[in-house]
Amino acid sequence: MLTLDLRCDKKRPLHRQIYEQVRTAILTGRLRAGQKLPASRQLAQSLGVSRSTVTQSYDQLIGEGYLHTQTGSGTFVCAEIPDNLLMTAPSPRFQQGCFTMPTEEALPPLSAYAQRIRALELLPTAPKQGLISFRYWRPDLSLFPIHQWQQLIKRHSQDNTNWMTYSRMPTGHPRLREEIATYIGQARGVHCSPEQIVVTQGTQQALGLIAQLLLEPNDTVALEEPGYLSARKIFLSRAARLLPIPVDGEGLIVRAANGLVEQTHRQPAKLVYVTPSHQFPTGAVMSLQRRLALLQWAQETRSIIIEDDYDSEFRYAGRPVPALQGLDSASGNLTNARVLYIGTFSKVMFPGLRLGYLVLPPALVPIFARAKWLCDRQCSWLHQSALADFIGKEHLSKHIRRMRTVYGRRREILIQALQECCRSFGPVAIEGDPAGLHLMAQLPLAQAGLCDHQLVERARRKDVDLFSLSPYYLQPPASNDRFIFGFGGLDEADIQEAIARIHSVLQDAVDN
Amino acid sequence: MLTLDLRCDKKRPLHRQIYEQVRTAILTGRLRAGQKLPASRQLAQSLGVSRSTVTQSYDQLIGEGYLHTQTGSGTFVCAEIPDNLLMTAPSPRFQQGCFTMPTEEALPPLSAYAQRIRALELLPTAPKQGLISFRYWRPDLSLFPIHQWQQLIKRHSQDNTNWMTYSRMPTGHPRLREEIATYIGQARGVHCSPEQIVVTQGTQQALGLIAQLLLEPNDTVALEEPGYLSARKIFLSRAARLLPIPVDGEGLIVRAANGLVEQTHRQPAKLVYVTPSHQFPTGAVMSLQRRLALLQWAQETRSIIIEDDYDSEFRYAGRPVPALQGLDSASGNLTNARVLYIGTFSKVMFPGLRLGYLVLPPALVPIFARAKWLCDRQCSWLHQSALADFIGKEHLSKHIRRMRTVYGRRREILIQALQECCRSFGPVAIEGDPAGLHLMAQLPLAQAGLCDHQLVERARRKDVDLFSLSPYYLQPPASNDRFIFGFGGLDEADIQEAIARIHSVLQDAVDN
Repeated sequence: MLTLDLRCDKKRPLHRQIYEQVRTAILTGRLRAGQKLPASRQLAQSLGVSRSTVTQSYDQLIGEGYLHTQTGSGTFVCAEIPDNLLMTAPSPRFQQGCFTMPTEEALPPLSAYAQRIRALELLPTAPKQGLISFRYWRPDLSLFPIHQWQQLIKRHSQDNTNWMTYSRMPTGHPRLREEIATYIGQARGVHCSPEQIVVTQGTQQALGLIAQLLLEPNDTVALEEPGYLSARKIFLSRAARLLPIPVDGEGLIVRAANGLVEQTHRQPAKLVYVTPSHQFPTGAVMSLQRRLALLQWAQETRSIIIEDDYDSEFRYAGRPVPALQGLDSASGNLTNARVLYIGTFSKVMFPGLRLGYLVLPPALVPIFARAKWLCDRQCSWLHQSALADFIGKEHLSKHIRRMRTVYGRRREILIQALQECCRSFGPVAIEGDPAGLHLMAQLPLAQAGLCDHQLVERARRKDVDLFSLSPYYLQPPASNDRFIFGFGGLDEADIQEAIARIHSVLQDAVDN
Repeated sequence: MLTLDLRCDKKRPLHRQIYEQVRTAILTGRLRAGQKLPASRQLAQSLGVSRSTVTQSYDQLIGEGYLHTQTGSGTFVCAEIPDNLLMTAPSPRFQQGCFTMPTEEALPPLSAYAQRIRALELLPTAPKQGLISFRYWRPDLSLFPIHQWQQLIKRHSQDNTNWMTYSRMPTGHPRLREEIATYIGQARGVHCSPEQIVVTQGTQQALGLIAQLLLEPNDTVALEEPGYLSARKIFLSRAARLLPIPVDGEGLIVRAANGLVEQTHRQPAKLVYVTPSHQFPTGAVMSLQRRLALLQWAQETRSIIIEDDYDSEFRYAGRPVPALQGLDSASGNLTNARVLYIGTFSKVMFPGLRLGYLVLPPALVPIFARAKWLCDRQCSWLHQSALADFIGKEHLSKHIRRMRTVYGRRREILIQALQECCRSFGPVAIEGDPAGLHLMAQLPLAQAGLCDHQLVERARRKDVDLFSLSPYYLQPPASNDRFIFGFGGLDEADIQEAIARIHSVLQDAVDN
């Protein structure tokens, strides 16, 4: 007689339990090939379940080839279940959310690319709840005009069904590309036609496509020191050799680049990655002079500039400097255009949107279109068409204007709080231009006898998530008393509370 | 005096025209550094526009650094606009939708990867309107329960805001992964826990991740001959060497694989790509015996099987054979698991959804999670959560059951029509099992003296889009009289009409 152990379990209906236990009985040999199973009516009775529950399980087992019926004589275990399957089948469920790397021998041979990304610290860590966090990538989502967005999503999902099929336009929704071209033309001085734009799954995919299409292993990529980690990781995943170029208050020191190339006997850089609107993490805005020097340098060394304009929308004082892309293409020589421009909607809209864009020299559009098609066909058509309207109906520009005031005020509160906090320990230096969602500050740690890691550690014990500048350097930094303060996601009270806690950490250290 | 030429143009508001013409005047040297501009009031008057239109243009030009104001004296062209920008700036607009490849010299040096994808026929071509098309990848979207889907999209976009942020779960929405695990466990005999699933942007991204993480250039990939072109292109883009293994009515001929490896003095295949549920394009279902032989071969040669189960849901007769993944993992030896299972929602839902999934041996999950995070962070959270509900509320299973009847009937109509059509020319051979959204048919072309390309060409003149089997072969096929008939997107009248037109093509050829 077949004995089954059924339990009341909302997640595993009875027919599933019967199916699984019979299947296991077959695979472990408890039920043998050719063996007859109890009639469904009989089994239902003995288990105290409805007959349809049993027939449902039997049907599935028949469908999957474990059982077969012989008209008039009953249900049998299939003869063709081969011996080598008749082994214990342990539950393959492994530890929930467990992304730790298994040991080498458990893996099939991985590619060199996989080996490289194995070595990178890649996965996101969930922040502890209840922390006040100076995370720099966080816009304030509570102030996003969510109602307008929801309305657009609803309308675009109901008004047409264009989102059901492939668009055959891997470079993106035509109306969205037009809106982007107009928007960055006005706001950023980017000169392009909609056909030069490729809509991507955020900056991440834009950088990934560039790295795949333009880099060979051991190619040199020049980047800012300190600089943006996610970009660095993408270049490292493609086996690029990184050439860190120091940054000052005017952005990348172009003069230093030449020297470094000679000094290291390297090939000229194939790509130069910069964040000129608000250098990450120092916050410097690249001056017009430096921009022109960089363009000239790129022209001379035939390198390509990647202009990541991630934080360009939020500028609180002074006038914006036109994008490198606009300065370059304004020279009119499009076939020699050297700038690939990257924009993202993660900060002005929300990170989960996963939409960004690349502005390419016309000659590069066909190869990027092919790569995007090969990679994932296209970005979400529903989100693209809703976003086109969100920009076209000026919801985006209104939101940006509003947030500029909010963020500008938060920045002031933060600076004020930092200055008050540090008053008794020494001068605090606020670096970077009044722009973006974070600032960099050099804190007076000497009197407290702390280094950056210690301050981060102790602030964390007081539930403040603080970020040292050190991890953003490739080479050891000259000083370890600088910090990145993201203020986008914190309201004014939180900012003041967090800085007060940092003050008490410093005070405690001085007192002891 | 500054002369501007303004036109009435809905797409280019007046302030934009003023901005552009002044900017061009500066960049081309018509307005010189330091030159004074007319006062906004004065210019507005002379152009016959409102003053605010002019100030809007001026403000933008000031913002971008082309103009500056001196209190009390007026608006001037900036001195720091450097000489080398003062050249003609032609409109960079290039031909709309033009994805043809530019000549070599216009491009910056491309990577080997880019060179390879340049050589592939990659981009989609838009079908001519009004054609009756036997495209094989098209489900009937008019029968999709769109209302339920729209309701779910609306609800999930309004009930919570989880879709605004990064989930920190690059492998996908936990509830969707649970629903998928249950669904493929029941329907396909796939044995996995939700943690083994990685949600991807369709099959395309799943294959792309596999190729990147497991393939080195010159690695051998065995695949079905004839076979699926998109998979072939992804392997070629990674410089794989393809080993075509012939297919018969039971699917991949495993015995032939061994012989071919020896014959070609190749390394054993690193990957074996198969479509066992409904072989593309022959329609053969891989027999249980072949499946077990393939698993054993993979175990012996230490190769990895990619099981693309793209068409498994639609089976019109006979019992489904359990997935290779289930047969493999049922052996209980998870650390030696050799099957990567790919599923897609493009056919059972709609192609524009861009959601599919990979089922991985546990040891491979961490590296795929890292690669997905590096690639594009995550798939659309809104679509993932809506899809989880669509499956959980049984809308999907109901839709599949309904479509199985509809498609099954269309398949019968098609077979009947083909048989009647060909009766006077010779026997028609319908190949492939009763499953999927297409069938393969060998048509009697001899009497009409046509080859496959000629029939395709002539059918097209009668507005029928027909697909020969030839392009799906790597090596020249033995016969050129076989065709793929996709019936998913055609209603019964269209099927009959199209086949009638094919009949008239054949009749015309015989008559002449």
